[in-house]
Amino acid sequence: MGAIYMKTFLDLCIKAIGAEHVILDELDQASYLVDWRNRKRGQALAILRPGSTLEVATLVKICSTYSVNIVPQGGNTGLVLGGIPEVNGSAVVISLKRLNKIRDIDVRNNTITVEAGCLLENVQISAGNSQRLFPLSLASQGSCTIGGNLATNAGGTGVLRYGNMRELCLGLEVVNAKGEVWNGLRALRKDNTGYDLRDLFIGSEGTLGIITAAVLKLYSKPNSQLTAFVALNSMIDAINFLLLIQKRSGAELTGFELMNQFSLDLVHKHFPTFQQVFSVAHPYYALIELSSGETELNLKDRLESSLEVANTSGLIEDAVVCFSESQTANCWQIRESISAAQAKEGRNIKHDISLPISKIADFIFETNHALQERFPGCQMVTFGHLGDGNLHYNISPPEGEVDSDFLQNQVIINQIVHDKTHFFHGSISAEHGIGTLKKQELLRYKSTIELDMMRGIKTALDPENIMNPGKIFETIQ
Amino acid sequence: MGAIYMKTFLDLCIKAIGAEHVILDELDQASYLVDWRNRKRGQALAILRPGSTLEVATLVKICSTYSVNIVPQGGNTGLVLGGIPEVNGSAVVISLKRLNKIRDIDVRNNTITVEAGCLLENVQISAGNSQRLFPLSLASQGSCTIGGNLATNAGGTGVLRYGNMRELCLGLEVVNAKGEVWNGLRALRKDNTGYDLRDLFIGSEGTLGIITAAVLKLYSKPNSQLTAFVALNSMIDAINFLLLIQKRSGAELTGFELMNQFSLDLVHKHFPTFQQVFSVAHPYYALIELSSGETELNLKDRLESSLEVANTSGLIEDAVVCFSESQTANCWQIRESISAAQAKEGRNIKHDISLPISKIADFIFETNHALQERFPGCQMVTFGHLGDGNLHYNISPPEGEVDSDFLQNQVIINQIVHDKTHFFHGSISAEHGIGTLKKQELLRYKSTIELDMMRGIKTALDPENIMNPGKIFETIQ
Repeated sequence: MGAIYMKTFLDLCIKAIGAEHVILDELDQASYLVDWRNRKRGQALAILRPGSTLEVATLVKICSTYSVNIVPQGGNTGLVLGGIPEVNGSAVVISLKRLNKIRDIDVRNNTITVEAGCLLENVQISAGNSQRLFPLSLASQGSCTIGGNLATNAGGTGVLRYGNMRELCLGLEVVNAKGEVWNGLRALRKDNTGYDLRDLFIGSEGTLGIITAAVLKLYSKPNSQLTAFVALNSMIDAINFLLLIQKRSGAELTGFELMNQFSLDLVHKHFPTFQQVFSVAHPYYALIELSSGETELNLKDRLESSLEVANTSGLIEDAVVCFSESQTANCWQIRESISAAQAKEGRNIKHDISLPISKIADFIFETNHALQERFPGCQMVTFGHLGDGNLHYNISPPEGEVDSDFLQNQVIINQIVHDKTHFFHGSISAEHGIGTLKKQELLRYKSTIELDMMRGIKTALDPENIMNPGKIFETIQ
Repeated sequence: MGAIYMKTFLDLCIKAIGAEHVILDELDQASYLVDWRNRKRGQALAILRPGSTLEVATLVKICSTYSVNIVPQGGNTGLVLGGIPEVNGSAVVISLKRLNKIRDIDVRNNTITVEAGCLLENVQISAGNSQRLFPLSLASQGSCTIGGNLATNAGGTGVLRYGNMRELCLGLEVVNAKGEVWNGLRALRKDNTGYDLRDLFIGSEGTLGIITAAVLKLYSKPNSQLTAFVALNSMIDAINFLLLIQKRSGAELTGFELMNQFSLDLVHKHFPTFQQVFSVAHPYYALIELSSGETELNLKDRLESSLEVANTSGLIEDAVVCFSESQTANCWQIRESISAAQAKEGRNIKHDISLPISKIADFIFETNHALQERFPGCQMVTFGHLGDGNLHYNISPPEGEVDSDFLQNQVIINQIVHDKTHFFHGSISAEHGIGTLKKQELLRYKSTIELDMMRGIKTALDPENIMNPGKIFETIQ
């Protein structure tokens, strides 16, 4: 863009949302331009912070007129660089953070209408204040936003019972690539009036439009909740234990998180104040959570009886049922601190894969074997949401090896892991999305037929390709 | 199409799937050309009955080459004429009924892979044989097919707990408008690798492609199930009772069906062998179902205690808990026979609407009032899936009025009902779809912005407009 055009463009943006919300200063821009894992730093013409849906619409129209690309951004907690602009600096970042109102809560309909920039935690708190539960739960809930959760179809620990963000959303408000406001803010459990645009925008990572608000489902707050930490001898036992608990507890099972011993070792090494649950090491652990409308006493009876059955049939090695809030918090802190412990330990190679649950044991056996053969001594940080078939299958360097040397193997390690994932009919991105980080790999694993249909939709809804171009698709014109 | 082209076209179809599966005889075609409520009779060049996904793909390619429009059809139980060809006879019907294999059942992953032509009931039975539950449940389950259930995003009585067909499907196989086979048969609970094509095809009523197979979710079969028939004094009480049961039973509440007294009167008049549940009439009734992994005794305790609380707080007038299979069957037969009883009584004007649950009482009060003012004595057949906010809000003529006279008011009555629905932020088609029956009304209630995005997607995925043209969209070129 020539200097004069650029000036006119920025003047229009300033006129639309006020100079204080058009960030041009390099220092002020910094936090919007780098991802939180500090892997990529982009550049932008400006950071735009609109304060309303109409202001978003006006900005999109201006961008469309001046052919300026748009990178929508929420809490900037994404893991695949979907919210970071390219280094050429030709795009603007539109931050949704000022759209942070809870617009409405309808307790009799069990719905809440919130703007895209609301922090996930604030939505959870608002729901709780009305004796309701908003069940999406992520490690980053204090800083991620609902808009980002929707754009990436976020998952987390409650998916087993309540589904991904897609299942938790009833309606959307979206500014499309023309700068029109689509009011799809329906609060309905059933609506079969045409194509499912809602689910198309959810998970599209800002490439089809900008989500500005949403109607989300609420649930009754459970009366009681119990957490247990269970030691397991093998992955096959873990899966059989999952099936047993699912059979006995049905929808009461609201969490089933898996960790291997090495994950736990890292946590206890870097967070020495956390209490160790077991004194003896075991290959795997499950952190399970049961929630119920009933009393804690009834729930405890059922949980203990299930653990007894599991123990008698040799499925589990040991189990601790948490009887205090602090014990429960300690167990969840262990689980939620695995990523942070890894970061403290050094660099590692991360994967966010999902598999049919029936294939997980074979996958782990074969992939561990292939990696050990190629990189003897590499250390497996295996954890994740087993109930959803979702593993964070991360790999740390062999003891003593320098991080940066090991990281040079990233491409080949990704290929080993993702080829096996593909072989077992899994997904190379269970809950983080594609962004720019996995778009090359998407070409490898997604059929041309599917990619062509996706490109057709992208072109139909964003013919000028101004909405987050370069994300998801490797090349698109 | 000229006669010579037509002959070549049909010869190619015969070559592709065999002469015995290309139905040209008028009598043999009849059942494919008329909807089951007998409201519209279409015409077709031929009825094509492919036996495999590849045969479907070949037929689509032939149709594309010869510019022949395609009407995909499942069990032909639809309610909005989405599977009936136009009267001009220029299209072929592609019936999926021969694609009726259960391809795979993976009990450890809780998934079943089935072809589009499988009867819903057969899928339920297959799941049951593996001690699993496939929870979609409709009155037409003995004749509707999975492909049709997917194409219309079917609902029914289990949605409250398990969701619509969209929530029950993990993956699809689709023949797109080019005749390519998209293998999206994923069996994953989490997969964020690009746009959600699955949910786009689900509910698109055959206008974007032909669904040929699907991976569906299975659940643990509940150990116990209890049904209760509850008498209620008002719609407001019904909703408060729903909230109370939801709060106390959470995911154990698997059904909450509403009926008004007149619905019950019709059933007992036309099915005199069904047992009456209550000797005294009440304005409304709820049929509720609780399901649990626990024993029936525990479940019964909880149900009875909830009913007691509801009774003490004056929410319910009377209640019967079913203690035998025959009593349970009788109650569900009453509920499932309302449509049939209406048909025996004569013609009536039907609606399939949904509303935010918090707005239903106001909607019914205002709409009943508006209708009575305009058509004094008209009789309200109000029933439906209250737990989902979904009402079948049907209207019978005043006693003594000739059906056909009353039916002349259909357009104005639809407008009164749907305008009120729209006013209360509801949907004019909760679970039946648009087809041809509601496409005029869609123009009235859907925003231009939304319709334009839908048309853009239609054009992107079916540029020649050969997939079920004239359905959903009033005019599309």
